[in-house]
Amino acid sequence: MAALLRSWYPWVKAPLLVSAPMLGAATPALAVNVTKASGLGFIAGGTAFESLDKALKQVSSLLEESSIPRTRGTLPIGVGFQNWSCHVDVAVAAIKKHVPAVAWLFAPTQMEDLRDWSQALRTASNGRTHIWIQVGTVQEARQAVELAKPDVLVLQGTDAGGHGLAESASVISLVPETIDALAADGNGHIPILAAGGICDGRGMASALALGAAGVVMGTRFLVAEEAGIAQGWKRELLRASDGGVSTTRSTISDRLKETVGWPSWYDGRAIVNQGHMDEKAEVPDDKQVAMYRQELRKGDESWGPHGRMVTYAGTAVGLVREVKPASSIVQEVLLEAKAASLRAADVFVVEKQSNPKL
Amino acid sequence: MAALLRSWYPWVKAPLLVSAPMLGAATPALAVNVTKASGLGFIAGGTAFESLDKALKQVSSLLEESSIPRTRGTLPIGVGFQNWSCHVDVAVAAIKKHVPAVAWLFAPTQMEDLRDWSQALRTASNGRTHIWIQVGTVQEARQAVELAKPDVLVLQGTDAGGHGLAESASVISLVPETIDALAADGNGHIPILAAGGICDGRGMASALALGAAGVVMGTRFLVAEEAGIAQGWKRELLRASDGGVSTTRSTISDRLKETVGWPSWYDGRAIVNQGHMDEKAEVPDDKQVAMYRQELRKGDESWGPHGRMVTYAGTAVGLVREVKPASSIVQEVLLEAKAASLRAADVFVVEKQSNPKL
Repeated sequence: MAALLRSWYPWVKAPLLVSAPMLGAATPALAVNVTKASGLGFIAGGTAFESLDKALKQVSSLLEESSIPRTRGTLPIGVGFQNWSCHVDVAVAAIKKHVPAVAWLFAPTQMEDLRDWSQALRTASNGRTHIWIQVGTVQEARQAVELAKPDVLVLQGTDAGGHGLAESASVISLVPETIDALAADGNGHIPILAAGGICDGRGMASALALGAAGVVMGTRFLVAEEAGIAQGWKRELLRASDGGVSTTRSTISDRLKETVGWPSWYDGRAIVNQGHMDEKAEVPDDKQVAMYRQELRKGDESWGPHGRMVTYAGTAVGLVREVKPASSIVQEVLLEAKAASLRAADVFVVEKQSNPKL
Repeated sequence: MAALLRSWYPWVKAPLLVSAPMLGAATPALAVNVTKASGLGFIAGGTAFESLDKALKQVSSLLEESSIPRTRGTLPIGVGFQNWSCHVDVAVAAIKKHVPAVAWLFAPTQMEDLRDWSQALRTASNGRTHIWIQVGTVQEARQAVELAKPDVLVLQGTDAGGHGLAESASVISLVPETIDALAADGNGHIPILAAGGICDGRGMASALALGAAGVVMGTRFLVAEEAGIAQGWKRELLRASDGGVSTTRSTISDRLKETVGWPSWYDGRAIVNQGHMDEKAEVPDDKQVAMYRQELRKGDESWGPHGRMVTYAGTAVGLVREVKPASSIVQEVLLEAKAASLRAADVFVVEKQSNPKL
């Protein structure tokens, strides 16, 4: 699997380390620098051709002097699309013009949309842009593979920050069960990436042990120097710890932002703040929205436990401790993943020495 | 850490594989057979001295002809106590009489109880019975260590079946963050076991990569031949898959059983059935309890998606596929964990060959 991924994305070191397509946060510079550091960087597609076109032009210009191989003639980054919110024509136009290495599909209103999107994007890129699909259950994984024959599946567990399924397992059970299910369906050749709760090399090594070919990190890249988020948000990411209790899943984030249209089975994980408290206290949404809007004017001061800004973060937020360039994050995580993998394997080697029967 | 654990429990193969102290389900035969297979088996302490005394006598008699070393003069199994429901005197009397290798503490009404329990049990066993404490957040881990200086900490993630914190992360972020927090407090010497969502060797390998010294499995041992649960429950464990959606966390299980006294921050993960549906539909508890009692009379037929029996299971229930003797489960998981660990490490070795700079 590692060799396959290296052949597809020849600048990538196995195992594959991916920065998530986080809307707003995943800037062209972040995506390009992750790729340059031998990961695979993503930007988010958004909903309008003009802004996506502009972002992809920036990517191209940032890559101008780089020696990264243009495999299949593609731009060596990916673009993530929220299927429910983006019109497929926007994606088709952008893919046709810029031919990124990967288009990542997520959150269709109905699973069948994945088939139509995949066909349209494959046609638009003449088969050069790979299709990755993000799912959160074993059943979704099987359906997505059946419908769209993706090149890669991203399995998102419940620890992930931002949007995801309201009900799902963490990657610790989701990844091995999905791998078995795909193998049973004759689809065991599809590489699996794990996402959700992974912020360092130990998390990455853990995903590899589960059978994943690589990982996607979101929260960790939110504190990359290149991430396009408010300082108040970054401050919160560095402050928060113990993400099982300091973050929570809810639809309040979309309701405060008055984002309408997410399929009902999604919500989002964020750092607990006044908005969540008020939700628990059953403060009506119109009142909450009014307070949120007022808070918006305060700038960076509107973030924090008593603020109301939407502070997406995964449960591994406590492992996020320092703002760094994206390239340093990639290097650090890969080195730590290697050390953690070798250390885990070593337990068994030592065991063999002390007990030759094992 | 592996060497330390082998010196403490010399019949144990590193890494440590533990069967959870599941009330009713974890029979003396299950515990003894896990230990005999070079894991560490547990029974549950319950609330009455008589039944615990009887169970520990059974353990002793099952171990009579075995050559397992009685390290520190202890019985080579552990006993788990729910601190809120069991009186410490019951535990003290049983520990004093039978001196199990480990007493596992869980779910105190207040964290300070862990200190009193640990002191009482250490005195009762003259320091021979080790104290393990189960927690579910980084903060609980730090407090438990501060208060009770446990020999081992069990970190339970949200994927676990049965009782656990209503709010917590999965082990993928909980384990590494807790390890770092303990190290920062000068308590990095305490071995960590991971629990929750681990049903096979890949899960075990994953936990080792996170830095755990071993794992606890519950759901997987529920389908051991020796497990003391209803056939209807076992049937459900074999049937259910995709545990992120087929199981859910709720307090409905305790309410149906009319179990009173669990601290309010606990609930339980179980396979979704009619009880959960009715809870969602806001059927009042008294009506639910009446239907539950009626259902109880049906025996094995009362289990299943339309039944009402409490079917505890973790999100990895889809990886539970066969009823086997506990010894086979232990052997299979250890071998698979070894293979998964070596495979994950191999990705980096291969990488080094193809890219000597890494």
